Amino acid sequence: MTKTAILLVHCPDRRGLVAAIADFLYRHGANILHADQHQDAELSLFLTRIEWDLEGFDLQGAGAFRPEFAELAERFEMDWQLKFSTDRPRVAVFVSKVDHCLVDLLHRHQSGELRCEIPMVVSNHPDNRRITEFYGIPFHLTEVTKENKEEAEAAQLRMMADAGIDLVVLARYMQILSPRFVQQYPSRIINIHHSFLPAFLGARPYHRAYQRGVKLIGATSHYVTEVLDEGPIIEQDVARISHRDSVDDLIQKGRDLEKVVLSRAVRWQIESRILLYSGRTVVFD
Amino acid sequence: MTKTAILLVHCPDRRGLVAAIADFLYRHGANILHADQHQDAELSLFLTRIEWDLEGFDLQGAGAFRPEFAELAERFEMDWQLKFSTDRPRVAVFVSKVDHCLVDLLHRHQSGELRCEIPMVVSNHPDNRRITEFYGIPFHLTEVTKENKEEAEAAQLRMMADAGIDLVVLARYMQILSPRFVQQYPSRIINIHHSFLPAFLGARPYHRAYQRGVKLIGATSHYVTEVLDEGPIIEQDVARISHRDSVDDLIQKGRDLEKVVLSRAVRWQIESRILLYSGRTVVFD
Amino acid sequence: MTKTAILLVHCPDRRGLVAAIADFLYRHGANILHADQHQDAELSLFLTRIEWDLEGFDLQGAGAFRPEFAELAERFEMDWQLKFSTDRPRVAVFVSKVDHCLVDLLHRHQSGELRCEIPMVVSNHPDNRRITEFYGIPFHLTEVTKENKEEAEAAQLRMMADAGIDLVVLARYMQILSPRFVQQYPSRIINIHHSFLPAFLGARPYHRAYQRGVKLIGATSHYVTEVLDEGPIIEQDVARISHRDSVDDLIQKGRDLEKVVLSRAVRWQIESRILLYSGRTVVFD
Amino acid sequence: MTKTAILLVHCPDRRGLVAAIADFLYRHGANILHADQHQDAELSLFLTRIEWDLEGFDLQGAGAFRPEFAELAERFEMDWQLKFSTDRPRVAVFVSKVDHCLVDLLHRHQSGELRCEIPMVVSNHPDNRRITEFYGIPFHLTEVTKENKEEAEAAQLRMMADAGIDLVVLARYMQILSPRFVQQYPSRIINIHHSFLPAFLGARPYHRAYQRGVKLIGATSHYVTEVLDEGPIIEQDVARISHRDSVDDLIQKGRDLEKVVLSRAVRWQIESRILLYSGRTVVFD
Repeated sequence: MTKTAILLVHCPDRRGLVAAIADFLYRHGANILHADQHQDAELSLFLTRIEWDLEGFDLQGAGAFRPEFAELAERFEMDWQLKFSTDRPRVAVFVSKVDHCLVDLLHRHQSGELRCEIPMVVSNHPDNRRITEFYGIPFHLTEVTKENKEEAEAAQLRMMADAGIDLVVLARYMQILSPRFVQQYPSRIINIHHSFLPAFLGARPYHRAYQRGVKLIGATSHYVTEVLDEGPIIEQDVARISHRDSVDDLIQKGRDLEKVVLSRAVRWQIESRILLYSGRTVVFD
Repeated sequence: MTKTAILLVHCPDRRGLVAAIADFLYRHGANILHADQHQDAELSLFLTRIEWDLEGFDLQGAGAFRPEFAELAERFEMDWQLKFSTDRPRVAVFVSKVDHCLVDLLHRHQSGELRCEIPMVVSNHPDNRRITEFYGIPFHLTEVTKENKEEAEAAQLRMMADAGIDLVVLARYMQILSPRFVQQYPSRIINIHHSFLPAFLGARPYHRAYQRGVKLIGATSHYVTEVLDEGPIIEQDVARISHRDSVDDLIQKGRDLEKVVLSRAVRWQIESRILLYSGRTVVFD
Repeated sequence: MTKTAILLVHCPDRRGLVAAIADFLYRHGANILHADQHQDAELSLFLTRIEWDLEGFDLQGAGAFRPEFAELAERFEMDWQLKFSTDRPRVAVFVSKVDHCLVDLLHRHQSGELRCEIPMVVSNHPDNRRITEFYGIPFHLTEVTKENKEEAEAAQLRMMADAGIDLVVLARYMQILSPRFVQQYPSRIINIHHSFLPAFLGARPYHRAYQRGVKLIGATSHYVTEVLDEGPIIEQDVARISHRDSVDDLIQKGRDLEKVVLSRAVRWQIESRILLYSGRTVVFD
Repeated sequence: MTKTAILLVHCPDRRGLVAAIADFLYRHGANILHADQHQDAELSLFLTRIEWDLEGFDLQGAGAFRPEFAELAERFEMDWQLKFSTDRPRVAVFVSKVDHCLVDLLHRHQSGELRCEIPMVVSNHPDNRRITEFYGIPFHLTEVTKENKEEAEAAQLRMMADAGIDLVVLARYMQILSPRFVQQYPSRIINIHHSFLPAFLGARPYHRAYQRGVKLIGATSHYVTEVLDEGPIIEQDVARISHRDSVDDLIQKGRDLEKVVLSRAVRWQIESRILLYSGRTVVFD
């Protein structure tokens, strides 16, 4: 597989930006594979994702790239990130009892679809230990109660720091994370909500969808912020239902949505396809 | 085309209900074409739509049917309606300036897809007179202001009563109907809302969808009740959007959704496919 | 969970059919939960699926039902089947190396979504032994070569007969079954084809879809007949692709389609929702 | 509205290509609004669409651009086109009796969604004269028979040449164009086929879809080439059907597909979003 570098940039829109970046890359021997540049006219911002072949590129590694690129980045006031297709982010998956999203992620990871490391699955219930360990991944049980919540989170955060976790995936984890926890992983916690947000924020969305009589149910993956279910949306999808579907059928149909909607978000995050700005995401798919 | 009768029933669930109705129809010579029977287990209700060929049926017309069916209906405490495929409900279409839903309905009506009469298009703006009259339909301009609203509605209601209107379709009519108006046409006013309800209730849903950064936009057709945008949902659909779409693009993509979502609701209503109960609809499609 | 019986019938269309069945069920104490009756006008056939609560029904078991129903069935020339929600069909899953459909089925089975027994997974490769055995299911390796094909199939058929297999699911099994094999399980072998049939019949459909430049890829689940990829279609779905998708991306996106399209077919088969007639299926969902 | 220029390029993939184009545009004062660059790894081709604000760009008009860009284009062996958002291509719409695609295009044109001129509607039947003229567009009736086909086409081609037609849209035109006609408008004739190509090539696709028992019906817009229904696909979409749908219902549901699938293709063509290469299209949407 071709080894590539990926540059994600957003900055104030300015003439010459594309030329400056393209010229910089060319001078260092880059062969651009894909580039997507987009102006947000309303906010006067420029957003771009550029991916190039590393073969022949003379700045190997972030350490070599950063000082060379710094002047340009500063001149255009860029908010930028550099990633490599060989990077394998370290992901902690959090789960409670319901297992379909976990099982789906573990299988996609094993099949090579998700190019990341999963050094740990964290759960407040013992139920998913067996399947996690089948896939060769350490399973950490941290029971969380009202009383020990602060302490439990502190233990989780220590464990994650020790393991060098880059990304947290909440694969139907039925605990609300404290602001303190969320602040440790800003824009690096992805959750799956089982509704078409912003409809049915909060608990029991399938029951409320049934009561309201909607004709489609949805699922939404989003970054977790301190405001519950209000974080930037990464992906959404829906499925048609009818009067023949009970609440249980909704829950079952919803599972298939949740799996694909969460796994797409995780994959896009791993492949550095998501640019977050002004509370919204751009997905360069 | 086969002439058919359609019976819509909902009632408390009880053994023998299907047999009783089927036996009644058989004794009167009905050949059943489609039947859909469904139990709502949660509410212990039985819901059904039965359609039969009128050829050979010995109770021609509602007048002949009603007294014969009355005993059965009473025994099972049925809430029932009888319709005929030859019925052509009389529809008033309300519209403001934006014309895509109106034009779509007029064309579907002309092509025979919507088997109804449209004795009038009512508008608070003169813009859509020409296209309405092209299709041979009288156009009534009723300017509505804060001051004359009560009076304007009274005039509309009189006109509709005179024309024997059965159904009101709000095809992007940008006026909120008063409770008094709504009460005159209970469950007989269909509106199109340009969002995936219950997300983005109220005004300017596309702008709010854009701000929130959703990945799909939607449209919802529903019956109008006295509570704005809270009436029973008839149909919904969604379309995918991306960062390449401005608010104007959302509005444009939304138009195609609005047209199909509204026209399906109108067609289902005309074909007696919608059963309304407990604030929700069942669509026997 | 409510124990129910399901009656699937197709027969020449005739007046009194619905009444006769409903009356029969009522006389034996059935409480009908769902019924769907449909006339195929073109073929003058009547198709129905009726499901009723077994509580209070006085013909418990197929043995009691059959003789009582026989006269009616004969009079209307019915092709009929009786199933019970407590029946758990015995399913053999066939798979080669690619594992996503297998893993999906095993998980859905374990989670209770697929109410069947899976007494065996059969494969021509050893790769999927570990995951199969994780789920507690016996794994049978039958290597198939040009030379031993007849013999290998004979061994498989014996094994399946011994295990009382009702249904065969080809979950990406890369061998063409002989007519002799197919004849042993008429309309009881379900395959997943990785294209939107009848487009791209045969091998390598994703490659051909890519070459042809289609904008949607699909997957199709169908009954296996002696003519390759021509059996009655049970379910289909599609996903949008773009120029950003390589053939490998198509294959990856296709996997998600294949899983849902195959698992829906298997579930509908298990729940007796599929009526097969004239080379087509009706799915009473 | 912002006046923009659009450059569409495909050429052999080579280092420095993006930089060379971006640098050229920057030197002439362009502010890039959107750019999408993509490498087709299999064919070693580079494909791009770049759109920039014309304000401040010092090469106004194709006449000024061409000589300046020529050297670059030659050096990289580019196949390129330059378009302007103010260009309004001149479109001839061909139609037979069935009117839904025509009516849809005329309305979208009037509402400003399709930024083109429509100097003529051409038909082999008189049926659509009235609606065409309502929208203020000249209607040309050219009856086509087996005997006069050559002559009729010659007359059409002359008329189109006189009117400076850039694009031909076959909006359900039920005549097969001769190779001679097609050669006059290479990659400039867009057709709507009422199936999900390559399934159901040729005539009566809805009837054949019904016979085959597919679960989704589709529509495909494509460029017309000399081989019937084999031209490069521009857009496709599908809709779900069930046993409740007769062939007539398929035809009716198909109409909504045909309208959106054709109108998207026409809009993309007008907005210079389609890049055609190797018998396939890339749509930069």
